[in-house]
Amino acid sequence: MSRQRLAIVGGDAAGMSAASSARRRDPDMEIVVFERGPYTSYSACGIPYYVGGVVEQADRLIARGPEEHRANGIDVRMRTEVVALDLDARRLTARDGAGAETAQSFDRLVIATGAEPARPPIAGAEAIEPVLTVDAAERMRAALERGGSSAVVIGAGYIGLEMAEALVDRGLRVTMIEMGPQVMATLDADMAAHVQDAAEGHGVRVVLGASVEEIELDDAGAPVAVRTAEDRYDADHVVIGTGSKPAVALAEAAGLALGDSGALRVDDHQRCPDHDGVFAAGDCAESHHRVLDAAVNIQLGTHANKQGRIVGVNATGGDDRFPGVIGTAVSKICRYEVGRTGIGEREAADAGVEVVSATIKDRTRAAYFPGAGPIWVKLVAEPGSGRLLGGQIVGVEGAAKRIDVLATAVWAGLPVQELALLDLSYAPPFSGVYDPLLIAARATAKRL
Amino acid sequence: MSRQRLAIVGGDAAGMSAASSARRRDPDMEIVVFERGPYTSYSACGIPYYVGGVVEQADRLIARGPEEHRANGIDVRMRTEVVALDLDARRLTARDGAGAETAQSFDRLVIATGAEPARPPIAGAEAIEPVLTVDAAERMRAALERGGSSAVVIGAGYIGLEMAEALVDRGLRVTMIEMGPQVMATLDADMAAHVQDAAEGHGVRVVLGASVEEIELDDAGAPVAVRTAEDRYDADHVVIGTGSKPAVALAEAAGLALGDSGALRVDDHQRCPDHDGVFAAGDCAESHHRVLDAAVNIQLGTHANKQGRIVGVNATGGDDRFPGVIGTAVSKICRYEVGRTGIGEREAADAGVEVVSATIKDRTRAAYFPGAGPIWVKLVAEPGSGRLLGGQIVGVEGAAKRIDVLATAVWAGLPVQELALLDLSYAPPFSGVYDPLLIAARATAKRL
Repeated sequence: MSRQRLAIVGGDAAGMSAASSARRRDPDMEIVVFERGPYTSYSACGIPYYVGGVVEQADRLIARGPEEHRANGIDVRMRTEVVALDLDARRLTARDGAGAETAQSFDRLVIATGAEPARPPIAGAEAIEPVLTVDAAERMRAALERGGSSAVVIGAGYIGLEMAEALVDRGLRVTMIEMGPQVMATLDADMAAHVQDAAEGHGVRVVLGASVEEIELDDAGAPVAVRTAEDRYDADHVVIGTGSKPAVALAEAAGLALGDSGALRVDDHQRCPDHDGVFAAGDCAESHHRVLDAAVNIQLGTHANKQGRIVGVNATGGDDRFPGVIGTAVSKICRYEVGRTGIGEREAADAGVEVVSATIKDRTRAAYFPGAGPIWVKLVAEPGSGRLLGGQIVGVEGAAKRIDVLATAVWAGLPVQELALLDLSYAPPFSGVYDPLLIAARATAKRL
Repeated sequence: MSRQRLAIVGGDAAGMSAASSARRRDPDMEIVVFERGPYTSYSACGIPYYVGGVVEQADRLIARGPEEHRANGIDVRMRTEVVALDLDARRLTARDGAGAETAQSFDRLVIATGAEPARPPIAGAEAIEPVLTVDAAERMRAALERGGSSAVVIGAGYIGLEMAEALVDRGLRVTMIEMGPQVMATLDADMAAHVQDAAEGHGVRVVLGASVEEIELDDAGAPVAVRTAEDRYDADHVVIGTGSKPAVALAEAAGLALGDSGALRVDDHQRCPDHDGVFAAGDCAESHHRVLDAAVNIQLGTHANKQGRIVGVNATGGDDRFPGVIGTAVSKICRYEVGRTGIGEREAADAGVEVVSATIKDRTRAAYFPGAGPIWVKLVAEPGSGRLLGGQIVGVEGAAKRIDVLATAVWAGLPVQELALLDLSYAPPFSGVYDPLLIAARATAKRL
């Protein structure tokens, strides 16, 4: 009997987690990974820090290179794109960097194709390279080092904000243009206003409610300015941070089902329905949102890694279940840290869920302790039961990792009345005697 | 009908929380607080920071003075000690600063007498004033400012460690002498070793397993040296940090029941059993430990405040329940932060509870992100079910407040297998893609 072969399409977080986890469990299985780019297992989240100079060397962003994976018995094919899948015949077609195509059979298959930029329909946008990969980040940093004094960031999500901060840190005049009415659409507007304050305090000019109509290019195709209906902004550099969408063209063409989110449908074992032995994980796949009880597509490395690991278990005969997500995220935006979990007021309204909510402002340390700064905590709970449905935190250093406490409480279904009396830690360097989370829970409980 | 009178013995965290909470709920009730010292509502936890100079002014430690409470309609009697209680007659005897005694009737009574130092039976110890109050801290700081080059701290609990750090910060040669085999007996020995490293790295000489036999005094009664069986240590200043015990003499004499912990027994409404209308809260009272399912005495401001508030509700006809504690605590010891919750391996062994445990070492930020440092996480879980029973964390800045995530998980009874896949936040400034807690949960789950 020949060795079983596991083919993995995509060699970043989900794909390489799947490969490593399968390798640990099954030393005999043949594991082949197809990665169309030049890097495996890199930290996309670290790119703004490399662009801004917080991280000096691009290769620091690479957790593990192809050689390390190969030494581990994983056959990694770099710069090799899978261009067709035949799920019934258990065969794929791969195209290498030179354009040569080869067929490859497989017994089990993992789709880990990640996400791709959601290109806005803006004239000139095609000339701007998305900064999603390490090599693109290197090209961007080289361009920054060649000169320029102004930059425009299109889109005010967390990546756009992190990039705007990085560009200010490099000495550029930075304008951020956002179509929507607020920065960071993953937060409620009241909490997002604090993030906007932080960005503006750092020197970012924030323009909301403005649609970009054109990125003006010079004859060499380099950006010169960005034009909205109302204004024109000098832009020696342009970053497009308008989000990304699951990269599912290959899988869709092969007949795999997409959910309403546009990502691949999977069950709680990361199996693609109706195709035995076919799995999907990471940015290209849906996850079950435990609060909304709905399938969502949340593109984060933390889910990609966990799902990949579970795929590696299940593709080698194991039985691991991905328990779903609750929308937890954290980022550092200029002087503030920002966290969110569960659902906010707007998401609740969108989902037709009635909620009660309260927001408090406090300090990150005891009043007398040096280095204290503001922290805002907003909680959203189910009327009646008081069950915590979500939380948002904005504040200075030390504030945002508290979001994990709320994530745990949301996960466990704790009511805010109980959270208000929970035995959380206290010492003057970390909070007042009532942690801000306890104060927020109490304020929310009062509104029930 | 005359106004109901609520008498409160003790004007610190528990007592003043009770007074304020009762005042908010019942504008008519007469509320009288007897405080034998010169301060109300001060932060005992802040004292080491005042001694070390992190906090410059002693009065910054006072959250609210007697005048503020009086303006709030609370009759605060300062420097007035309650010397006798007659619970049947509903009458107490108070002695003011001049020694004059007055009788006072009450309808309801709150015992919030706090804790007092557990004086070790050491010759000379009687000359060393405990630094538990703001005025004692002021006297200590004045003594430090008068001079001296050496100090000895007796006892290596968290207060002893904080004081040792503060004394090093003031330029003294500091020796810490501990009878037991490790610093910080609230941690397991393996985790405590990291705390000892931090203290020694800060310049504290740590002597373990040594009993102090004498504090040598000069003719004026000031310390000169501290002697153990083996050695003699110069000591221009001495701090005794050997813990404190519930201050229950008054209540015990009045016939209120003590538990095995030596603190006052209370039910889950903070009521003293068999005495209608008599409540106790704070350091002098027991709490129900949810993991051990036993009554314990944990002297922390966070419990005192919560219990006091609940007493204020219940003493004014309300029906609030204190849900118990799980032993959560955090402190900052030199370069490390230290957190603990639930039970550790030693406490489990003492209670005859079988556990599985794992300890991991990780970094506080993504590997490539500047400013990362070590973090150790130890988890303790129930065999079979995997239910998280406790956790301990030691690490650099940003590490220890994660203990609140573990506290929430312990509180909710989450199994470590579930914790390992929980949707915790990730961004490079805060952790690797797997938060250290997830890695620790996974390591513990593997041992089940």
